[in-house]
Amino acid sequence: MVNYKSMSSFNQRLKKRMAETKSWLCVGLDVSPERFPENTSFAQVQAHAEKIVEATSDLAVAYKPNFAFFERWGAEGMVWLKTLIDFIPDGPLVIADAKRGDIGSTAEQYAESIFSHYGFDAVTLSPYMGRDSIDPFIQSPEKGVFILCRTSNPSAKDFQNIKSNGKPLFIAVAEWAKTLNENDNVGLVVGATAIEELKQIRKITSGLPFLIPGIGAQGGDLKSSLRFGNDKGIGLINVSRSINFAGDLSVDAIRNSAKNYVKQMQEIMI
Amino acid sequence: MVNYKSMSSFNQRLKKRMAETKSWLCVGLDVSPERFPENTSFAQVQAHAEKIVEATSDLAVAYKPNFAFFERWGAEGMVWLKTLIDFIPDGPLVIADAKRGDIGSTAEQYAESIFSHYGFDAVTLSPYMGRDSIDPFIQSPEKGVFILCRTSNPSAKDFQNIKSNGKPLFIAVAEWAKTLNENDNVGLVVGATAIEELKQIRKITSGLPFLIPGIGAQGGDLKSSLRFGNDKGIGLINVSRSINFAGDLSVDAIRNSAKNYVKQMQEIMI
Repeated sequence: MVNYKSMSSFNQRLKKRMAETKSWLCVGLDVSPERFPENTSFAQVQAHAEKIVEATSDLAVAYKPNFAFFERWGAEGMVWLKTLIDFIPDGPLVIADAKRGDIGSTAEQYAESIFSHYGFDAVTLSPYMGRDSIDPFIQSPEKGVFILCRTSNPSAKDFQNIKSNGKPLFIAVAEWAKTLNENDNVGLVVGATAIEELKQIRKITSGLPFLIPGIGAQGGDLKSSLRFGNDKGIGLINVSRSINFAGDLSVDAIRNSAKNYVKQMQEIMI
Repeated sequence: MVNYKSMSSFNQRLKKRMAETKSWLCVGLDVSPERFPENTSFAQVQAHAEKIVEATSDLAVAYKPNFAFFERWGAEGMVWLKTLIDFIPDGPLVIADAKRGDIGSTAEQYAESIFSHYGFDAVTLSPYMGRDSIDPFIQSPEKGVFILCRTSNPSAKDFQNIKSNGKPLFIAVAEWAKTLNENDNVGLVVGATAIEELKQIRKITSGLPFLIPGIGAQGGDLKSSLRFGNDKGIGLINVSRSINFAGDLSVDAIRNSAKNYVKQMQEIMI
């Protein structure tokens, strides 16, 4: 039996890592083969992912591998995912970008897979199926969740901005997520492409960490999302493509891109 | 290049299979090791899944493996999933119960994995992130999607029943799903535990197939869900645990359980 009481909560671990690194950077690991020259082998794709980790492990608060980019290779992709997680040195936290959401008994199986088998520190979850789809993931304080609240994609508005009694759905999700935070291990996914929504969400969720995608290729606003996201709580900025595929794909190019992001963040925040 | 125009749409394929088998049964493949005697090996769990297929392949309109029960075994589980799909004979369709939902570029990777790598005929998807999270999955008419609309779990109500201008979210999702059905390959997940909601949804979605979970262990109402689900459209009834783990776990017990469901369905419908 693990004695969870003696361990820090996920949200505390995140805060500690940010303070140690003076960084707000989460490096998304979305290494799609389409972005390499033709005839790049699967082994070369895998080697590139390790190169990203080597180049950035002192700069990254966390890594966020997106399951889709591993699952597309079938079982070999899941071997790769496990190998890559084991390759990440002590220090950065590792967030499974899996966007899971299923009935309780199934969610338990996913929690087993993500936390116990792969050893992730946190996971992204969809709120659509309600509380019993989240519960199995928030039992251990040191393991965390980021619940999709206001996402960064263009069609996020289709449902997330629907209003009930004047209140948008993303606000209802945020209020609800706050009630789930009994173990100090619940956060929210809030896109940098929707700053007004981000500000509204932050107003009512002081203390909940934000995982903020949408910077870089998606055109999100770094300065505003960092400032407002870190007002009364942590805001972790995810960058994937513009670090994963920086310049000539060398260690130096990747490191420079990550360093440049951290430098910009420090200039805004310190 | 596949010539999709010469092929039947997913919804037509489903209809054809139901007519051929005079069945409304989808067999969920949720083979969790906790339900076996202690010391059951992974190989025995895998053999049991093949036993389920052998016992039911002429009775099942479709199989629905739930990804969680495979992912929990890590990469080996994904090898098993591929092997199991390849083991399913021609006839039954195969639905990936993966409940995916991600931004467009990521959804493309999941579509590649689920349709091309594993060879599934359809997939379950979450609506929370909106249209661009569905689009990559509905490009090929012969491949289908079932969008989560009103799920069968107790906390489904947390968000799905929230009302906007008097209209519950599950109705907004159903109306929206209808507009996505240009290739005749969109359906809905509607739980048998929420018959009033199922009736409301059916009223406005004639022609869209329903995938109806919640029968058996979850206590849903077979007669009502079958009748109302098949009024002006197809309603496919999913049964997992009470077939997967019938009686003494023998081929006969499993086959008898499935046969009994199909007999009940025929008595209700024919």
